[in-house]
Amino acid sequence: MKILLSNDDGYRAPGIEALYEAIRDLGDVEVVAPEHNNSAKSNALTLHSPLYVHDAANGFRYVNGTPADCVHVALTGLLGYTPDLVVSGINNGANMGDDTIYSGTVGAAMEGYLFGIPAIAFSQTQKGWSHLDAAARKARELVQQVLACPPPEALPWLLNVNIPNLPYEELKSFKVCRLGRRHAAEKVISQTSPHGETMYWIGAAGPAKDDAEGTDFHATALGHVSVTPLKVDLTDHDALRGWSRLVAPLPAAGTGAG
Amino acid sequence: MKILLSNDDGYRAPGIEALYEAIRDLGDVEVVAPEHNNSAKSNALTLHSPLYVHDAANGFRYVNGTPADCVHVALTGLLGYTPDLVVSGINNGANMGDDTIYSGTVGAAMEGYLFGIPAIAFSQTQKGWSHLDAAARKARELVQQVLACPPPEALPWLLNVNIPNLPYEELKSFKVCRLGRRHAAEKVISQTSPHGETMYWIGAAGPAKDDAEGTDFHATALGHVSVTPLKVDLTDHDALRGWSRLVAPLPAAGTGAG
Amino acid sequence: MKILLSNDDGYRAPGIEALYEAIRDLGDVEVVAPEHNNSAKSNALTLHSPLYVHDAANGFRYVNGTPADCVHVALTGLLGYTPDLVVSGINNGANMGDDTIYSGTVGAAMEGYLFGIPAIAFSQTQKGWSHLDAAARKARELVQQVLACPPPEALPWLLNVNIPNLPYEELKSFKVCRLGRRHAAEKVISQTSPHGETMYWIGAAGPAKDDAEGTDFHATALGHVSVTPLKVDLTDHDALRGWSRLVAPLPAAGTGAG
Amino acid sequence: MKILLSNDDGYRAPGIEALYEAIRDLGDVEVVAPEHNNSAKSNALTLHSPLYVHDAANGFRYVNGTPADCVHVALTGLLGYTPDLVVSGINNGANMGDDTIYSGTVGAAMEGYLFGIPAIAFSQTQKGWSHLDAAARKARELVQQVLACPPPEALPWLLNVNIPNLPYEELKSFKVCRLGRRHAAEKVISQTSPHGETMYWIGAAGPAKDDAEGTDFHATALGHVSVTPLKVDLTDHDALRGWSRLVAPLPAAGTGAG
Repeated sequence: MKILLSNDDGYRAPGIEALYEAIRDLGDVEVVAPEHNNSAKSNALTLHSPLYVHDAANGFRYVNGTPADCVHVALTGLLGYTPDLVVSGINNGANMGDDTIYSGTVGAAMEGYLFGIPAIAFSQTQKGWSHLDAAARKARELVQQVLACPPPEALPWLLNVNIPNLPYEELKSFKVCRLGRRHAAEKVISQTSPHGETMYWIGAAGPAKDDAEGTDFHATALGHVSVTPLKVDLTDHDALRGWSRLVAPLPAAGTGAG
Repeated sequence: MKILLSNDDGYRAPGIEALYEAIRDLGDVEVVAPEHNNSAKSNALTLHSPLYVHDAANGFRYVNGTPADCVHVALTGLLGYTPDLVVSGINNGANMGDDTIYSGTVGAAMEGYLFGIPAIAFSQTQKGWSHLDAAARKARELVQQVLACPPPEALPWLLNVNIPNLPYEELKSFKVCRLGRRHAAEKVISQTSPHGETMYWIGAAGPAKDDAEGTDFHATALGHVSVTPLKVDLTDHDALRGWSRLVAPLPAAGTGAG
Repeated sequence: MKILLSNDDGYRAPGIEALYEAIRDLGDVEVVAPEHNNSAKSNALTLHSPLYVHDAANGFRYVNGTPADCVHVALTGLLGYTPDLVVSGINNGANMGDDTIYSGTVGAAMEGYLFGIPAIAFSQTQKGWSHLDAAARKARELVQQVLACPPPEALPWLLNVNIPNLPYEELKSFKVCRLGRRHAAEKVISQTSPHGETMYWIGAAGPAKDDAEGTDFHATALGHVSVTPLKVDLTDHDALRGWSRLVAPLPAAGTGAG
Repeated sequence: MKILLSNDDGYRAPGIEALYEAIRDLGDVEVVAPEHNNSAKSNALTLHSPLYVHDAANGFRYVNGTPADCVHVALTGLLGYTPDLVVSGINNGANMGDDTIYSGTVGAAMEGYLFGIPAIAFSQTQKGWSHLDAAARKARELVQQVLACPPPEALPWLLNVNIPNLPYEELKSFKVCRLGRRHAAEKVISQTSPHGETMYWIGAAGPAKDDAEGTDFHATALGHVSVTPLKVDLTDHDALRGWSRLVAPLPAAGTGAG
């Protein structure tokens, strides 16, 4: 069983070290992770500058790129084999609801999924690494389970897991949930640099807007470990017909207009 | 009618200049775009360094960040009002099928959508800007139509549009399509630097794998302008039940397990 | 007569545009300048990442590197010939006294000098480009003079020129000066980012400490254009003997200790 | 006795770790070093983006900036006191002759010197860290000596030290030398990226041109540890008169010309 491990907080983050220790005996685990913090890097790939891969003292490899770069490079040449599972995390903070769109942790896992490999992204719901040992233990339980049991869906699949920062004894069961929704992000924060230039900082993510029962927000608030299966089909199939009507009157310049 | 215009090729790219000229008389159009090429930057946001906004000689504003940063900063404070439409592009190359996951052009539009504003991402299917005038004219037609007609869906909506690089007369009708799928990306390309270090470059996107009738690949290959409505719900609703069964046997450490 | 022109404020800065216009008819002038502002980049070279050279619309070429990178790449291959003179500037602000150690404007000129080519660095004493036309006219006068007259020194030579921001009619004569000295720089400026991290900013250069008659500070304060010939021999020849005595007692491990 | 230690290879480089271990008992030694490799960064300062200071697990502090940034920030606020000595290195490779102009190792030491603090830059003459223990032991000997003996010159002073990569027993005595000179650098190296863009790489430093007896090149080739006192007065005093004659004929526009 071959497992590729990455993250978005960088190869020296406590979260990836804890996750590595937790799952290392479940298979051949290789780490290819970003050199630096890549929070909110989404699925970004580095197209216009070269990537370098270095070996860290602890056997991890790190890349001067994004989470998706790490998985991409690993899968398209660096590893020399196709892993059975891509695991990402444990992230320093929640990736629930709309966070998944921006998350580098999810981006790393999704890159595996887009190459046809099952993948799991793990996050703690609060920043600061409290009870990281408990999160790592829960992560191990889920990885062990997906390796042991026939997956419920055709390959590949992609799971987004959020774990409350609680002692192991206080963590409740795994709960399969849909993603909730957040309110719009906070206002941009502006500061003036000593040179008199205005600096803008992206504000905090908005609070939960849809945190009804059945969502990841709801489950983790109760102490459950949320598990959300993701799929990556952005097409709004229900809307195809309506839009067809709207564009129908537009001119078709070409001869075969139709 | 207030329109925010951005892109991912940078504020000096021919695509955004052409699009601005094409739609400027349809409303109050403001440009906030990246300083540099941000291809494949997906929905990435810059959280850990400050963003600066500068005025270009032509009235555009540019930001030392990603496409999503530009729209985010514009909507959360820079503009001082909420635009009626966010438009992104015209991109230098296709954003079809899985490209949409990585695309900074789509990322900019999606940022508007996530703030509740209708948005359109425009791309030419080939790189090199050939027949950019025709693409801009087609973009104008669609923007005009969505401003004029009641949208078929509740707000917000998000359209991904790909325009073949053809003379205007050869372009066929707008065609509403689902996203196709691509094969996995090409192998990573490695080079050795003069210092003896191995440099890795992300390889080209894979060829179309699902380009059946009804897809954006199929429509644009025939000369149509593809229009794909997108939605951003990554939850795989159909898979919730199966995964619930799989995680059910896992231990619930906490007292309220269940 | 072949002239290579560079700067540190970037190829789009008013200073390099004005200088180009002022000297373009004095020879074949080619511009290879940094893409971005590189103030205070000293003689820094980019060793560990590749440099790209692009053509701007106005015929200038720009490089994603430092001022010294620009001149280095131009002289070691890009130009294909050896220019007769390297000119740098006009810089946005003074490069007097200790500033020359940090200055990218001087760094670009010094790179030419280290390749054996005479070089001149031009700066305005105040930021903001006021009376840039007068500075460019003065720069032209000096370039014309060094092209016309036999230089007083063996090749190569290196001149550091600072021009007060005054109308042409108010500028006094060129005055050859030594460099003055500045007091230590201002205290570092600290700010707290919205994420609670302390950010440090390099403070302003110190005020003049040695601005006696004969220095660049003194001359420019009176309205003169200061011209300081530089040489690059960092050895403190007068101190060699004293240090020899100090290290003499140290052990010589090797067999041929001497 | 308070010592500030920095380098240009980054805070995790073997050279700074070895130097720290070698001198830590000679005083209160604090490390403030760059986060990343900053070879050839000269005296560059970061003016236009904020610097962050982080604590490493081993007690070192690291900064996302240049060697000169590190020393600058330390001396203008971070340390809260004025150290008695600034030490930089041990560098991975020679800083002899013209190298000193580009060297980040020398740049860090020179920043201390410009703030009025004695400073020493240490380098090994070959890359690769062979016999680093011997170099560290030699560095300790010199630091011990300058702390123990009255310096031969008024404060501040600045030493540039190059140590052959030899076993301790084979290293010969410290030898006070002037800087040699190098031939011009090698030709720029060009490569084509997979996107078809030409990438340029700064070529290797040139071979020694002036390596006569009395130079650092000569001494280290014989196995000596070269010690070169530096001073930072770029004015070419001998040339002032000649240049005065050359500029004399130029027009003085201003009323007080003269």
